[in-house]
Amino acid sequence: MSSRRKLPIGVFDSGVGGLTVVRALMERLPFEDIVYFGDTARVPYGIKSIPTIEHFTGQITDFLLDRGVKMLVVACNTMAAVAAHVVKSRAGDIPVLDVIDAGAGAAVAASRSGTIGVIGTPTTVNSNAYARRMHAIDPDIRVFSQACPLFVPLVEEGWLEHEVTRLTAREYLKPVLAEEVDTLVLGCTHYPLLKPLLQDVSGPDIRLVDSAITTAELAAARLASLELANPGHAPAHYAFHVTDIPLRFQTIGERFLGRSLSHLSKVDW
Amino acid sequence: MSSRRKLPIGVFDSGVGGLTVVRALMERLPFEDIVYFGDTARVPYGIKSIPTIEHFTGQITDFLLDRGVKMLVVACNTMAAVAAHVVKSRAGDIPVLDVIDAGAGAAVAASRSGTIGVIGTPTTVNSNAYARRMHAIDPDIRVFSQACPLFVPLVEEGWLEHEVTRLTAREYLKPVLAEEVDTLVLGCTHYPLLKPLLQDVSGPDIRLVDSAITTAELAAARLASLELANPGHAPAHYAFHVTDIPLRFQTIGERFLGRSLSHLSKVDW
Repeated sequence: MSSRRKLPIGVFDSGVGGLTVVRALMERLPFEDIVYFGDTARVPYGIKSIPTIEHFTGQITDFLLDRGVKMLVVACNTMAAVAAHVVKSRAGDIPVLDVIDAGAGAAVAASRSGTIGVIGTPTTVNSNAYARRMHAIDPDIRVFSQACPLFVPLVEEGWLEHEVTRLTAREYLKPVLAEEVDTLVLGCTHYPLLKPLLQDVSGPDIRLVDSAITTAELAAARLASLELANPGHAPAHYAFHVTDIPLRFQTIGERFLGRSLSHLSKVDW
Repeated sequence: MSSRRKLPIGVFDSGVGGLTVVRALMERLPFEDIVYFGDTARVPYGIKSIPTIEHFTGQITDFLLDRGVKMLVVACNTMAAVAAHVVKSRAGDIPVLDVIDAGAGAAVAASRSGTIGVIGTPTTVNSNAYARRMHAIDPDIRVFSQACPLFVPLVEEGWLEHEVTRLTAREYLKPVLAEEVDTLVLGCTHYPLLKPLLQDVSGPDIRLVDSAITTAELAAARLASLELANPGHAPAHYAFHVTDIPLRFQTIGERFLGRSLSHLSKVDW
């Protein structure tokens, strides 16, 4: 068991978005090694069918299990929404956690009125996964969801404070805010970069749930309860595997990670 | 040779965008059969690296050649920009034409001042393919390019006349219009759906070159000169192969095609 504590945490996403989760994990768990997998050759998953997403998710899970990880973190809302069962069935006794479990739990805990908004990609929103997991915790929660397909390209364009982004956010959030939600889940790993703008458009009374941060909290709690936390205090090792290294990858990746991105390697499938 | 005239034209794109080219071909060449291939499981290509795009392009070319086509039309600016050589080297004596050749030729013919703007995805613009092909026709042409990464998601969101799209177009077009271009090439198959808005933002003096229409014109001319036009007048057959059929595919596809989309099949790779 003690050797298992020193193994890395496997984190994966369809692209670069999951690096916001890695960033939160680095800050919350500075002595844990991390192996990241981003499927940059086939991103985005949010516009693909469920069988295709399940197939891709299985491939990535096997890749990380082969690398010997002690925990798997699904840092992609789309995969967590429609293919979490694929990860769990392959992982055996390796604990699996995902951004939707983390975000749903944190939102239910944060809301006073029991009326919660969720924003995400079309696939995440159509899957209804956040509502189902919130209702499993508290059946009386009311959930209002809104797909925001333009937020990912706006973040990747770097228009984090742009008037176009503000107008788009006003349009997307209008129906959710009209339901008088008191909590809004940022149900996509790209959205934490829009937090200041979204807080501004939502107003100061709405609590935003950043699922990158809540996922890191959940990972820390789970490692502690399973006695899987790394007992050492050596500098952590990070490795980043991607299926493609496109133009501007380094720039965009570093914007998400909040620091320089090294130990990057391309997987050829 | 006469049996070859009855073979279909193979048209391909990374996703649904190429259906604007199919639509133009259906209108210009109503008696030609068409086999379409859209790589919807791996779209968009515009954010991938060149070796990855070359690899995918080769796979698609082989798929269409196996179906027995008399001509190949690369209806994807990204593939035409960085992987046209892959198609040509595999096609042998089958004629190959692409949206960039068509758009570049039409723009040079249309421009009076010799100052031309090109808008497209980041990969298309960074490839400099339009400028190179225009300079091969006329070395004195001045070309000003601008990447417009948000236009594809805006079209797919259906915001064809939305204030957000107008603001985005003003921002993207500003540096190109400042160069006093008299012709603007819509260097992405999604952009014809934004034509009214782009004409409005550009002003009435700018001539927009729609590469879907110019590609259909070029295909008609090439079929005639090679004596490959279908001599029959039977209703044409259309077949659409895609690698994924995601949510809303039918709706978005029909918006591009301008009619109902049938004979759709999913290729499992």
